Parts: sequence; structure tokens; C-alpha cells
Amino acid sequence: MTLEYQDDSLTLHTDAYQLSMMQTYFMKNIHERKAVYELFFRKLPFKNGYAVFAGLERAVNYLKDLTFSKTDISYLRDTGQFDEAFLDYLTTWRFKGTIRAPREGEVIFNNEPIVQVEGTVFDAQLIETALLNIVNYQTLIATKAARMRYVVGNQTLLEFGTRRAQELDAAIWGTRAAYIGGFDATSNVRAGKIFNIPISGTHAHALVQIYRNDYEAFKAYAQTHHNVVFLVDTYDTLRSGVPAAIRVAKEMGDQINFIGVRIDSGDLAYISKGVRKMLDAAGFPDAKIVASNDLDETTITSLKMQDAKIDTWGIGTKLITAYDQPALGGVYKVVSVENETGEMVDTIKISGSAEKISNPGKKQVWRITRNKDGKSEGDYVALWDEDPRAVKGGLVMFHPVNTYVSKRVTDYKARPLLQDIFLDGKLVYDLPALEEIKAYAAEQIDALWLEYRRNLNPQEYPVDLSSKAWNHKMNLIRNVRNYVNEVGIEIDEHQGDYHA
Amino acid sequence: MTLEYQDDSLTLHTDAYQLSMMQTYFMKNIHERKAVYELFFRKLPFKNGYAVFAGLERAVNYLKDLTFSKTDISYLRDTGQFDEAFLDYLTTWRFKGTIRAPREGEVIFNNEPIVQVEGTVFDAQLIETALLNIVNYQTLIATKAARMRYVVGNQTLLEFGTRRAQELDAAIWGTRAAYIGGFDATSNVRAGKIFNIPISGTHAHALVQIYRNDYEAFKAYAQTHHNVVFLVDTYDTLRSGVPAAIRVAKEMGDQINFIGVRIDSGDLAYISKGVRKMLDAAGFPDAKIVASNDLDETTITSLKMQDAKIDTWGIGTKLITAYDQPALGGVYKVVSVENETGEMVDTIKISGSAEKISNPGKKQVWRITRNKDGKSEGDYVALWDEDPRAVKGGLVMFHPVNTYVSKRVTDYKARPLLQDIFLDGKLVYDLPALEEIKAYAAEQIDALWLEYRRNLNPQEYPVDLSSKAWNHKMNLIRNVRNYVNEVGIEIDEHQGDYHA
Repeated sequence: MTLEYQDDSLTLHTDAYQLSMMQTYFMKNIHERKAVYELFFRKLPFKNGYAVFAGLERAVNYLKDLTFSKTDISYLRDTGQFDEAFLDYLTTWRFKGTIRAPREGEVIFNNEPIVQVEGTVFDAQLIETALLNIVNYQTLIATKAARMRYVVGNQTLLEFGTRRAQELDAAIWGTRAAYIGGFDATSNVRAGKIFNIPISGTHAHALVQIYRNDYEAFKAYAQTHHNVVFLVDTYDTLRSGVPAAIRVAKEMGDQINFIGVRIDSGDLAYISKGVRKMLDAAGFPDAKIVASNDLDETTITSLKMQDAKIDTWGIGTKLITAYDQPALGGVYKVVSVENETGEMVDTIKISGSAEKISNPGKKQVWRITRNKDGKSEGDYVALWDEDPRAVKGGLVMFHPVNTYVSKRVTDYKARPLLQDIFLDGKLVYDLPALEEIKAYAAEQIDALWLEYRRNLNPQEYPVDLSSKAWNHKMNLIRNVRNYVNEVGIEIDEHQGDYHA
Repeated sequence: MTLEYQDDSLTLHTDAYQLSMMQTYFMKNIHERKAVYELFFRKLPFKNGYAVFAGLERAVNYLKDLTFSKTDISYLRDTGQFDEAFLDYLTTWRFKGTIRAPREGEVIFNNEPIVQVEGTVFDAQLIETALLNIVNYQTLIATKAARMRYVVGNQTLLEFGTRRAQELDAAIWGTRAAYIGGFDATSNVRAGKIFNIPISGTHAHALVQIYRNDYEAFKAYAQTHHNVVFLVDTYDTLRSGVPAAIRVAKEMGDQINFIGVRIDSGDLAYISKGVRKMLDAAGFPDAKIVASNDLDETTITSLKMQDAKIDTWGIGTKLITAYDQPALGGVYKVVSVENETGEMVDTIKISGSAEKISNPGKKQVWRITRNKDGKSEGDYVALWDEDPRAVKGGLVMFHPVNTYVSKRVTDYKARPLLQDIFLDGKLVYDLPALEEIKAYAAEQIDALWLEYRRNLNPQEYPVDLSSKAWNHKMNLIRNVRNYVNEVGIEIDEHQGDYHA
């Protein structure tokens, strides 16, 4: 019964409604109409002040190989829901769209396009689901990792989450995202192999249980490895674990590199202080204390407040699942589409909730920084034909919701975030090395004012629509109102909700 | 730079410390010592009264193909952390262990072994991480799905979560788990293809935006599909969406199967009632209303309390990520290991928290049901050599923590949950068809008393250690205490914590 992944193609990794719509487009002969779709999220995750973009490499890999396999087609046929001419068209279909995105590691914000897809409605529809699936998760984890980096300063962060990850891909790509966001190493060997991320890990409680004795286990471990960290909490951390670690470290001397000890249970604040004293007294002031056990940025902050003597942090569940907010709510909306006569017409999705009304039109995101020190002034989301690099008298940025407040920026640099990744189906972007991406993320986070970077109650970073984009949006809202008034029936509605 | 998944093997999908320990076992020549490891979780997820076991098929696929590829070995060599003789041993290594587990869809509980691995310490160590990764996630999602099934009764549940899933595997295997736990269909076409799960989905807002008109869009859709559900909330659900849907349904008549309409935003309670009235008045009393928008078992319950007119539920984020508890805390502990002289010695992991002390010894889980109606009496966790099927005078089940309360069960059936999956490395289990697994899960949930099945504050299902297993555990705790007293140093410890 197990079909496993035989002839598995990611092309069908999409929602059924995409294929249903594609069939309509095809049969109505509008499948080659051009359109622009944009991917964005409405709220920053974890109430953080920024997010770290990740997922581009995975998305590129997905897009590169996008073809319907024979079994894809025969499966679709077997569902009985698809037309034969449509299926025939799929067999030779290739992705021909243009994709724009920031580079991985870029700092990004809510309500700005982070992936832009320009192509036929047909192509753009198919890829929505997988793009969201990839970008939502990896951006979420890179951002979570950055929050942890924020609280540990220069200390070492180890990713230990595989056993609690949401299936295998999350362990692998989540680790990569964590590395981008600021982690130093992972326990997942396969992630180490695939991405060349440093791997970390010495032994578990099982080793001690097998020897039924801390000392014997540590000794055996030390005799079979050069770099050693002893896990000291199998039986009693302070009474038997640490003394055994010290004894072995002394006995082995220069034969090993005694890195330190790890504690994985109990009161980490209290125990780490006791461990520190014992290591210092034994002449190992440089031995590190590694701690793990359901840690996240909040518990780390608390441990630091208590002056816990922890040097290295092993983080599992709370990172790899983004435990306190396990999904980023990225969405993908059509913002412009070709009409019957070949003109591009911008389009809007209306909602009873004002913040859910989409921003129409093909847009670019411009990062505005001060010339003098490169520090962040805000993002300026403008229609594609605008160029905020050359505005006389300075750039006026107004608040995207409370439009009656604004600021004028002079002596600034404007850098476009959306870069060409695919042009008409062709990959035109060189994927940077992971180390580069990681360094870039650190640099970009550093360019943010501290007020945007703090974990708790950060200031809101300005992400402003250009006046032109704003007025355009207002016009389209009016158009929809006119449409609804024209075609709409009168209903006996309660008057509680605002609407467009 | 992109290594992608070339020559990807899941064998390295493990924590680095497993390989480090395996090297110690190998170099100390204890790698062929027999051991028993058990996987279990300490707390039921979502404060639910039970969990639904899932992940076995994926685990079997993983275990079947477990060999170190050439690039696996060369990668390990390149890390500089492994001994050449050890790497050489890995090249011909094959998994030779025995695996026992309940069948997928089985109802399971906390503090009972749900996977048992019997084999060499070497083999058992390697597979820990992937087994946890797989079983933790899939069991979590199957259980979450069962909670949603509980609140909707016989209504239809659609899995719509791919775009918010934690990477691609979670979308696919999460969908399968959701299907086991009680979902009816998925939007993920690839999951449909791989597992033969019914797929579901008609169109998105984009279709309406492309036509810039509800009626035109619905008409085009209806002309290109037989089964149709119209998404009516792009502009104004009650004023333009539903009237357009009704108009098209009337115009198309028997040419289409008008299943109903879908609403994806706004006040679902209020809007669904308005939609129902309009559909009824238009002569479509059988048209269904599909609702989606961040739903979970709590919001569904609330909508039902408000008498919302919703027939079919589309669930995304909250299901596929298990949003309110995105990880099941399954762990894997060695419970018995061969000593120097070839005897099996049971082993225990001690912790400052009493509930974290492991249950030593190789065990079986016996499901105790009443003969007369098959209803659940509890689970009886016994040492491997015990047989609770033949206890004269009835089975005494005592509370696993508060051991001063107990009950005596007579006229019962005892069924062992752990079945042989692999025997000495050979797959001996026929994986059941997914439909069978799904039906089995429904049946097993049904066999639970309602008091264990309710979502909120369920009664605690009895999971009891046999007297023999309990006494054994107490003996081993005493042994550890003696060990610590013997080898342990005196420390000036605060007296706040209980310990073993």
C-alpha cells in the first residue's frame, strides 16, 4: 500500500483549487493573460520588530524542476475532475514566469511584497501554495533564531530540534533558517552534510545508563574522542556527574580537549552556578557549561537575569517549531492582471477588516537608509514606475494606516529589495553561499536602530506606501464600492461593521 | 552552492551525538551489546484524553533503506570527528534490530511505550532521532484532527493547511495524519496522489479578481467544471457574492452540480446565517456552506453555539501546525541493556522531577477492555514476561502516581498493543491500507468512554504499571540512590528539591 515517493514530483505540491482555476483559465482561453501576484504577511511574527527573509534557495530548487510527470497527469485524470485538453496542455507546460525577491537574510517587514511573481495567471496560480509553504516556515524560523541571538550576544547557539520538528523537511530547512538567523551549529548531521553547517553533539544519557556509572561512561567517551563535553545530569549533576567529569578531565589531561559539561534538566540557574564553582575550583575555569531543556529567548533572558553560569545554549522544540507562533501568515494576492484588451489593470481584494484590504498594483520595496551611517529610516513601498532615489526636497513617508502623520527624509539612500530571480522562466540569480547569507543577515539586523531590534515591545518600523500607491488604492476601493452598489442587492444588514 | 538533495540519504537524519556514542560503543567493542529502548511521551497533547498513533508507515520506509551512502561516509570523514575503523564499519552496516509498535490509528496514552526498539545499542542509538521526528509530529496531528472530528460530528472536514505547514513534508505527512484522525479530504494534490486521499478545492479570490466581477467569474468557473463551490467573499458576500452564485446556479441548472458556496472572511456566524436564508429562499436548500478562516475546535464549537449555518469546515493553520501545541514531547529511553557478562540489566534515568523518572525494563502495553461491550477499562503496562490475560480473581490496576488508589477488573479482555514490525532487521509487518487505518482509528476512539473523549477536561484514562513493574522501578531507584551515596561527593545543597 505504501506509495512512498516514487516518481514524486513537487509540481502537484499545490492546492487543488489552483488546478481547478487553471482549468478555467485554459478552457476560457485566458491562461496566457499576464498578471502580477505578490506574497506578503500582515503581521510580524512573535511581535518582533522585523523578520528575516529565508526560503529563497528552496523556492528556486522547487521552481527549477517544475514539470508535470506522467504519473502526475494520470493521477489528475483519475480524479475525474479535469478536462483532457487541459491535461494535454499540462504535459508540455513549463514555468515561464518572472520571480523577484529580496536576497535571503534580508530584513523584511509586514505589508510589503517579499516575493513578486509576474507571468501568466496560469503559471502564477500553480506556484502560490508551495511558495507560501516554503517562505512562511523558513522566514518564521530565521526570525525566531534572530530573537534568540539577540538575547545571547556572542555566546554559542546550538540547534537541537530535529526530534521535535514537524516532520523531516522542517528539521533540515528549519536548521538552515536558524543558521541564517544567527545559530552557530546544529545537531542534525544530514543538515550538516547538505548545507555544510557545523555539527555539534557529544553523548546522551544512554551512554551513562549503559555503563551504569558516570565515571566509566565519561572515561570511555574520552578515550574515543578528542573534543569532549560530558552530560552530567543522568543521576545527580552536582554529586556524581560533575565530580566524574572533573576526574576524567584530570586523568586524561592533554589527551583530550575538555570543552566542558552539559546539563539538560533541573533548575538550570541553581545548578549551573554550582557546576561553575566546581569546575573553577578544580582548575577548569575555561570549561564551558552547555545548557538545554525547553529553552527559548524568554527563559534565556530569565536565566541571564539570575546570573546563571551558562556559556552555550542548546535549543530544540521552541526554535524548530516556533512554538509560541508556529505559523507566519503569509498570503499571496493578485495585484494586477491583463484585461480583455491587453491592458494591465490593477486589482484589489476587499475585506471587512481594513488591514486585510490588499495593496493593488505592481510594487517595489525601497529600503530607505541615512547616507551618513547607513541606519534604517523605513521602507517605502512604491508603484513599479516610481523612483524614490531622486525626489527633490526629500521623501515624504506617511504612516500607512494613520495617514495624518508623516515624516520627511532627506540625505537618504533608497535601495530596491526585490531583485530578479527568474526572468521569463530562466534562473538569472546566483544563489549566494550560506555563510554569505548568514553574514548578510547579521549585518542587516545590525543596521536597524536598537529600538526596532529589541525583543519586547519594539518600535514599529515605518513601512509606508508612496502617495501614488495610496491614492491608487483609494481609487480602487471606490471602484469596488461602485461595483457593489451597482450590482449589489439591498439587504437588511446590521450596521455594526465598517466596510469599504 | 546549492547541494540540494543529491545522494540524499536519511541515514544521517540523526543527532550528531548518536554517531559520537556509536563511535564509543564501537571502539570500546560494546557495539553489539543488546539493549531495549522505548519511545513514549509524558503528557497528552492539547490536554486531550487520548492520542492517535501515527507515523508508522513513514518510520518503516525510513528503516527499510537505512544504509550509509558513500557521500555520507565521506562527509563524516571530512568533519574530522570520526575514527577510520568506525567509518569503515559504517560502510557495511545494516539495521538488524527489532521494532515493535501499535498499529497506526491505535489510541494511545502518555507514559506507555509506543515504539520499542530491541537490538544492539549501536543500531538503537542511530534511529532515535528520526523515529521521534516522525512519530512526534504525525501523532500530534492525528490527535488534533480527532479533536476537530469530535466537535463537527458527521460534518465534512477539509484539510487546507499546506501554505502554513512547516515545510513540505509536514504538509504531506500532516495531511495523512489528519486523514487518519478524522478528516475527509485535503487541498494538497500531491498528498492526494501519494496517499489516495480525496482532494478538494474549487477556486480562490484570484479568479474573481481576474474577472473583476463575481458573476462573470462564477459563470466561467461553472462552464468549465461539473462540481462547483463558489467563493463568495471577494467583494461583498451578501450583496454581490451570494446573489451572483445563485444567479449562475439558476442559469446553469442541471449542467452543473451546484454544491454550494464558501466564505473565508468576516463574521462567519452572522454571514453564514444570511447566506443560508438567501440560498433557501432561492430554492437551494441543499446547497452547502463551506467556511474557513483560522478555524480550530474551539472556534468551531463557538460557531455551533451561535447556530452558525456551516456544513463543511476548511481547516488550515491550526490543524497542520497543531497551533496551540506544535510539538509532542515524545522521548526515547534505554530501559534494559546487556552487561559485561551477557545478562540483560534494566536501567533507569533519574530526574529531580518525579514524573521524568523513566520506567525501567522491557515492557508490553495491554489494553484492558470489558468483555461485555468492549469498552475501555485502562492500559496495563507490564514487564515483558507478565501475562495479564490469565490473572485469577481479576486484575488489580493501581494509579501510576497515587499508588494508594486502585481498582480490580474482572471479566476483561487484555490485548497487547506492541506488535512486531521488524524482527532482526527484517520487515515482518504488512502495512495496512490508509482507509483501514482511518476506520480503525474511528473505531478505537469510539471504544473509549465518552468521558475520555470530550475535548475539554476529559477524565484521566488509567495507564497503570503492573505491581511487578512498579516494584522493579522502586528497586532501581534505590540502586541509583545507593550509587550516588557511594560515589557521590558531599555538597552544600539547598534542601528545596525532592530527589530519588
